[in-house]
Amino acid sequence: MIQGHGDDLYKYKRGIVANFSSNVYNAVDLSGLKRRLTEQMNLISSYPEPAPYTLEELLAQDFGCSPNHVCVTNGATEGIYLIAQTFREVKSAIFVPTFSEYEDACKIHKHQIEHITTLPNVGEEKVSGAQEFDMVWICNPNNPTGLAQEKKWLIKLIENNPKTIFVLDQSYEYFTLQPVLSIAEGISYNNVILLHSMTKRYAIPGLRLGYITASAQLMNQLKENKMPWSVNSMAIEAGIYLLKNGLPNVLDMNNFLQESRLLAQALESTGIFAVLPSHTHYMLVKITEPLCYPSGIISKKASHLKEYLANNHGILIRDASNFATLDETYFRIAAQTQKENTMFMEKINALLESISICNK
Amino acid sequence: MIQGHGDDLYKYKRGIVANFSSNVYNAVDLSGLKRRLTEQMNLISSYPEPAPYTLEELLAQDFGCSPNHVCVTNGATEGIYLIAQTFREVKSAIFVPTFSEYEDACKIHKHQIEHITTLPNVGEEKVSGAQEFDMVWICNPNNPTGLAQEKKWLIKLIENNPKTIFVLDQSYEYFTLQPVLSIAEGISYNNVILLHSMTKRYAIPGLRLGYITASAQLMNQLKENKMPWSVNSMAIEAGIYLLKNGLPNVLDMNNFLQESRLLAQALESTGIFAVLPSHTHYMLVKITEPLCYPSGIISKKASHLKEYLANNHGILIRDASNFATLDETYFRIAAQTQKENTMFMEKINALLESISICNK
Repeated sequence: MIQGHGDDLYKYKRGIVANFSSNVYNAVDLSGLKRRLTEQMNLISSYPEPAPYTLEELLAQDFGCSPNHVCVTNGATEGIYLIAQTFREVKSAIFVPTFSEYEDACKIHKHQIEHITTLPNVGEEKVSGAQEFDMVWICNPNNPTGLAQEKKWLIKLIENNPKTIFVLDQSYEYFTLQPVLSIAEGISYNNVILLHSMTKRYAIPGLRLGYITASAQLMNQLKENKMPWSVNSMAIEAGIYLLKNGLPNVLDMNNFLQESRLLAQALESTGIFAVLPSHTHYMLVKITEPLCYPSGIISKKASHLKEYLANNHGILIRDASNFATLDETYFRIAAQTQKENTMFMEKINALLESISICNK
Repeated sequence: MIQGHGDDLYKYKRGIVANFSSNVYNAVDLSGLKRRLTEQMNLISSYPEPAPYTLEELLAQDFGCSPNHVCVTNGATEGIYLIAQTFREVKSAIFVPTFSEYEDACKIHKHQIEHITTLPNVGEEKVSGAQEFDMVWICNPNNPTGLAQEKKWLIKLIENNPKTIFVLDQSYEYFTLQPVLSIAEGISYNNVILLHSMTKRYAIPGLRLGYITASAQLMNQLKENKMPWSVNSMAIEAGIYLLKNGLPNVLDMNNFLQESRLLAQALESTGIFAVLPSHTHYMLVKITEPLCYPSGIISKKASHLKEYLANNHGILIRDASNFATLDETYFRIAAQTQKENTMFMEKINALLESISICNK
């Protein structure tokens, strides 16, 4: 397990007032869900279903498919480790830079790993190479870049390589306007496994809730390898509640992505940051010029900016230097509310203005 | 994953009024914990610690050892699967009949499995055989029998077989007066892994919370193979709260075990049931004479008794026929409160009296 994931609030005792560090959009109204969980607190006294059958059936109804195509997991992370374990010791390609858990899971289960660099995007010429691999891992939209692969290109890749299993992590599918594979499309291929995240969709990372969808044949293999009771009663109850009730004030994605681009532009306009293109609300940012801190440190390191913002302003960003193929100048931020985004830029601009102090 | 674990309340829509089916003692006051979880409901919005460091440190403080010896897991079940995965493809002996997850986990991770029958107890003569195995799985006290191995015998077995890893599942350690291995004893051996269950101790099976203790060397291997975020925020918070506050009205184990033996005697005295010896509050029961049901069915099958009690009286027992080496006449019950135990025997005696109906 790598050190230094996002959302590491627990490290900062002073209190974080704005959290840009995880890709979860936090400004949602969870009051109905919290009320429900409080009412159902007796659930802590009984075992959850060994596999979350009830929630799997509800999801299947929603998708118009059989529950044989759905497996609810302890966050998408359990899905990643389950897939790596079920198909162990195969040759895996991972599109990088990306979420580190694919590689960690593949290492544990003795995959032979190759990186395919996709910054800013993969090109047509890579399609032919997939046949060399038993498994290809693609985070789509990707973390940390926010880029979604072109759907047509992806479908062609899948169809041209029927012996390669494509693991498409669609944890951020609800935070992009780019088309991604639908559940029905995913299960129609015998070589596609889709990962989904209720954690991300509903902003409940504390509960750990995700699901896998795949053809019945692939799903059988996965379920045969899964431990029981991996999803706890509160998480299952939350999933059932959210499927039935959703959240109030559904996010206007058009508007939200526009806000995210404004934040990107504001960072770019400083001349200090390069923001990589993104199809979602989070983005990868490179510090291109040295920043000067009140402590006297002059540095392009994301870790320095992270410590400065957390300790001085209670703002949390994600140091992205530990993503494979990225260096220490990269950080990731996820746009939040307009107010928080504005506050973020104010603190950044104030820091830039103080550069004169260092130059003295 | 086997079908038909205990605590399958969710299958009975009519409502279960007394649950003897899981080994969890339910008559505990969880009101303080529930209040705490309600107050801390905001935790659902943040990622839990990737590994539950804070809870591991608190447990280590409690045990007077370093956190390097402690790994908090998503129920003891995650521990079982993690151990089987970390030491995959080895030769494992399992003391049976026992909790089915050892065998399921070993099968998934390609262990070569051998059963060692321990009904009612293993004898001295088996000590010498352990060297044939890389790993020995012992549930202690055992589920479903409730028997604890003699500690002296167990220590001798461990010391005489230093190349064999002994996995001792002590999930029920707080429900017996028989001595079991202490944390300190466990970590002092390089070939012992202890499993512990907060689920069982505090009657919170819905939350999924357990931990492993072992030597630093074994623990390193286990932690390298563990997925992050497997324990959710509510479970971690519950663990921290319970360690600090415990539960009110600690169970008087002397008294409770006496009550359990009364229940056993009442069953035995019917002449229809044979109750196997147990060192805990749950017990394995064999139906030795055919029971006659209002439906006209005459049967020694535990499944028939289970369906009858659930559907007619809202009482849940554990059909134990799916434990390896047991047949369809076995069921398991865990003693509950005196009132519930009495009610259970009333329903059993009423059923036995109606046998005359069948004989007509």
